[in-house]
Amino acid sequence: MKYKKKERQEKLVEMIEETPFITDEELANKFGVSIQTIRLDRLELSIPELRERIKNVANKNWNETVKALPIDEVIGEIVNLELDNLAISILDIKEEHVFSRNQIARGHHLFAQANSLAVAIINDDLALTANAEINFTRPVKLGERVVAKASVTNRNQKRTKINVRSYVQDELVFEGIFKMYRSTEK
Amino acid sequence: MKYKKKERQEKLVEMIEETPFITDEELANKFGVSIQTIRLDRLELSIPELRERIKNVANKNWNETVKALPIDEVIGEIVNLELDNLAISILDIKEEHVFSRNQIARGHHLFAQANSLAVAIINDDLALTANAEINFTRPVKLGERVVAKASVTNRNQKRTKINVRSYVQDELVFEGIFKMYRSTEK
Repeated sequence: MKYKKKERQEKLVEMIEETPFITDEELANKFGVSIQTIRLDRLELSIPELRERIKNVANKNWNETVKALPIDEVIGEIVNLELDNLAISILDIKEEHVFSRNQIARGHHLFAQANSLAVAIINDDLALTANAEINFTRPVKLGERVVAKASVTNRNQKRTKINVRSYVQDELVFEGIFKMYRSTEK
Repeated sequence: MKYKKKERQEKLVEMIEETPFITDEELANKFGVSIQTIRLDRLELSIPELRERIKNVANKNWNETVKALPIDEVIGEIVNLELDNLAISILDIKEEHVFSRNQIARGHHLFAQANSLAVAIINDDLALTANAEINFTRPVKLGERVVAKASVTNRNQKRTKINVRSYVQDELVFEGIFKMYRSTEK
């Protein structure tokens, strides 16, 4: 649906606040305007481009937050992390992630993003995956951006249960329930 | 238990026939002798070293057998493959596969070996993972060799169910049940 400029810019601000990692292309599609129009809107509104928005978030030094592994061993880029509660990471699907034949992302990369997020969320020095149930709900293509959201759903004794849902835009592409061992009880 | 040389060499031949991908170190442990003794035994018996034994098997051109993906996209080295029936691959756990902190293999590498074997076994041009239930039954350490064995357990309509069990020597380290989509029905 088409909005007038003022209305569109108001909605644009709202939308970027709600989903800060939305791309200009996605915004253009949502508003039915060109990417160039979105860029001009952002310029007028002084909203930095996506890369800058991610950097701002990434600048929070997650390295000091993550406990269970060094941050460079996390697959994907962490953009939010509250230990033993929730975590979000972004993975851009590039050539090295896809089957050469059909340009579909290989399952183990989506799994690696989700699994390493499930490790990173643990507020402990040791976290190992005990088991997982996973679903690939729709193929992910080259060039798509996968946002994985992990949340701790249950914790007892030495096990912590973590639900990870990964999305491309609003579409669920992967879902996993991970049960993790950890070194200490609380 | 210790054997006399003749007895040990007979058992060595049997053991290598049964489990051709056993290492000299594993053999030395089994017989309670030094690795050097095993090497001399192999020399006397004209049994090639492990690397050669693997190469002999790998020389069978699996590339012409695999249908669902190019063979260089399989994680691990395929050593046996009967389409829509069974498949075996080997993955040596190196520095790049482990957590730096504890030298334990990261789950997604074991998953990648198993999952790509589940793709390779499919006698079809297209195979995608729909879902999986996986268990990590014991941590795998740097330097260990993981042998993954996949077998098709069920097939109906467009889904094929594949059970993958991965071992280090005789110990189960990973188990996964993969349900795969494929492009054609039979």
